[in-house]
Amino acid sequence: MVRFADRMNLLTGSEIRELLKLTAQPDIISFAGGLPAPELFPVEGMKEASMKTLDEMGRAALQYSTTEGFVPLREKIVARMKAKNNIDTDVDHVLVTSGSQQGLDFSARVFLNKDDVVLLESPSYLGAVNAFKACEPKFIEVPTDNNGMIMEELEKILAKTENVKMIYVIPDFQNPSGRTWTLERRHKFMEIITKYEIPVIEDNPYGELRFENENMPSLKSLDTKGLVIFLGTFSKILAPGYRLGWVCAEAEILAKYNFMKQAADLQASTVAQMETNTFLDMYDLDEHVNKIKEVYGKRRDCMLKAMDAHFPKECTWTHPDGGLFTWVVLPEYINAKEMATQCLEKKVAYVPGGSFFPNGGHENTFRMNYSCMPEEKIEEGIKRIGEVIKANLR
Amino acid sequence: MVRFADRMNLLTGSEIRELLKLTAQPDIISFAGGLPAPELFPVEGMKEASMKTLDEMGRAALQYSTTEGFVPLREKIVARMKAKNNIDTDVDHVLVTSGSQQGLDFSARVFLNKDDVVLLESPSYLGAVNAFKACEPKFIEVPTDNNGMIMEELEKILAKTENVKMIYVIPDFQNPSGRTWTLERRHKFMEIITKYEIPVIEDNPYGELRFENENMPSLKSLDTKGLVIFLGTFSKILAPGYRLGWVCAEAEILAKYNFMKQAADLQASTVAQMETNTFLDMYDLDEHVNKIKEVYGKRRDCMLKAMDAHFPKECTWTHPDGGLFTWVVLPEYINAKEMATQCLEKKVAYVPGGSFFPNGGHENTFRMNYSCMPEEKIEEGIKRIGEVIKANLR
Repeated sequence: MVRFADRMNLLTGSEIRELLKLTAQPDIISFAGGLPAPELFPVEGMKEASMKTLDEMGRAALQYSTTEGFVPLREKIVARMKAKNNIDTDVDHVLVTSGSQQGLDFSARVFLNKDDVVLLESPSYLGAVNAFKACEPKFIEVPTDNNGMIMEELEKILAKTENVKMIYVIPDFQNPSGRTWTLERRHKFMEIITKYEIPVIEDNPYGELRFENENMPSLKSLDTKGLVIFLGTFSKILAPGYRLGWVCAEAEILAKYNFMKQAADLQASTVAQMETNTFLDMYDLDEHVNKIKEVYGKRRDCMLKAMDAHFPKECTWTHPDGGLFTWVVLPEYINAKEMATQCLEKKVAYVPGGSFFPNGGHENTFRMNYSCMPEEKIEEGIKRIGEVIKANLR
Repeated sequence: MVRFADRMNLLTGSEIRELLKLTAQPDIISFAGGLPAPELFPVEGMKEASMKTLDEMGRAALQYSTTEGFVPLREKIVARMKAKNNIDTDVDHVLVTSGSQQGLDFSARVFLNKDDVVLLESPSYLGAVNAFKACEPKFIEVPTDNNGMIMEELEKILAKTENVKMIYVIPDFQNPSGRTWTLERRHKFMEIITKYEIPVIEDNPYGELRFENENMPSLKSLDTKGLVIFLGTFSKILAPGYRLGWVCAEAEILAKYNFMKQAADLQASTVAQMETNTFLDMYDLDEHVNKIKEVYGKRRDCMLKAMDAHFPKECTWTHPDGGLFTWVVLPEYINAKEMATQCLEKKVAYVPGGSFFPNGGHENTFRMNYSCMPEEKIEEGIKRIGEVIKANLR
């Protein structure tokens, strides 16, 4: 009999991606995915960029290239991190990855032995939990509130826990909660991790999609000891189909990510990197991001307004200042997974929240995405979910 | 201090990729890489395919898609494996990966716990060894001769070794040796592994590039027990820049690879898959492969002829029937790594062979690539290497 490695016992398909298959039916109103709105993709622009790239450097675009990534694209990434996240760095500290998901996988492989401890927000991004599981760590969930990770709880855990090798956080418009850490929490966090010298994975896929209030400084921009590994991606500000993300870290740490990249798949797609670089030369990405923010902001408003109108007062939900998600907490006696089946019968879908807690529990929660449904469907979908919730109230 | 995972002690940059940086200087005659000839890339065809894809299904191409891969592309992969490798399968048994390198990484992660044993040909592909190292296995090298892996040696090893979890082989135009297993060896191999029920990774990046003699059946086509995992790629028959390869395996095994893919980077590039699929709809890939074979065949002839003329009789080298490489054995007292420095001074490069033996030794060997240099440079380069070898003879 063929025997698999132990790590395979922990890996199962993501419930989200399985659910997404169900919700791909066109008559379903789906708030389940984390998909960007495809009607906003700059298809014509990417076509122009693609033609220009293949015309001007076709042979190089179709060939192998360096593991680290295409230098002109990394230069643009450096400039963007400076402009948007106040991070001072250079191309030697950037590695291009296959989406930021690959940055998550590499983070685990760079830092985690079996049974090492990884800390993360409770709840946290399911795809990160899945990637980390392949290294068989222990997860400790750090409690959160509307201002982000609770620093007193983090300190308590660090004071009593051995072998904490990595802390994974999404400080801006978190997946799944939609919450953003306050400035005070960010400073306190950096103070704590600087004391303990623990590497931090700062995952920032949504940071540029802020609809209101001021930008917060990235943790990486507050990092004086080279402990923060920053993960960025073009998936939410341009398009996910090219699978381009990046890792920015100190030299000694990034060298390890480069080795992992080489072993894992040699390099990110040359042609995807060059075409994206050409697009960024030809078009104003900020202008494009502004369009996205305008549309998503309206959809968020629409969803929150509909929730106010249709969800019973026994529920609470978050008010995201940006990003793609809001997070709903039901009365404890309602199981959101069971309720999801009732909702699917009414042709509306969300992701039950239990999967976002690596150590289980919290089955009375769910995640709602507002970025890829038009407003009239958002209103109708929320109305239907509201009816199902009300039918489940005691 | 930041602590890294134990596996990172084993991972260092590939010597080949470091060497490739050196040899990228335009005045170097490089036989070091494993690069396809860029002048043969169908740049215009890919441009047409790219425009058509973005015109007809741009939004879908730029969006996330399924982990398993784009169904029409997987259908073409299935048809191609039937036509070229006599493999009977269907789309449900195919996963699209980021090059076949990713298939190697996943193979290790699916099958290998720390200290498990992996068997491979001696020598074997350095990139595979590197990928496997991230799972901290033990390597046992199985001796080979001009007919491929030596089956008596394989049997001896299997009879006395516990925890052999995987066997990695490249039966066609092996990297680095250029050798191809005989039919008899293939049948004997399948008999042995069927008895021991050990999963086999059959890596087949070069199989279609045969210049002479008959095609050999793939191991997968001789597999009655679902033990062979077949890795294919578009890198050598179309272009590596899109990073598209595939894994074909039995359902229970492929499910594990799918979980790994989801955790590692969600999916292969949607746009790369769709554009490649469109290219295959618009153009005849066989015709293109015939052009590649014609050019590479001539370059091989040129290299072998030049070796006959310029290498001293104290050296031996392989006669590849296809693929990209020939393998040179020097007298034992010559160190090919030291000699590489001397060759670089004469502006000519190869890869020292020691790196292809995971357990070390064999420093008197080197790998030569003939696919990406024009014939006049091949002749000149071989002449220079011949002079250096002669200067090192005792």
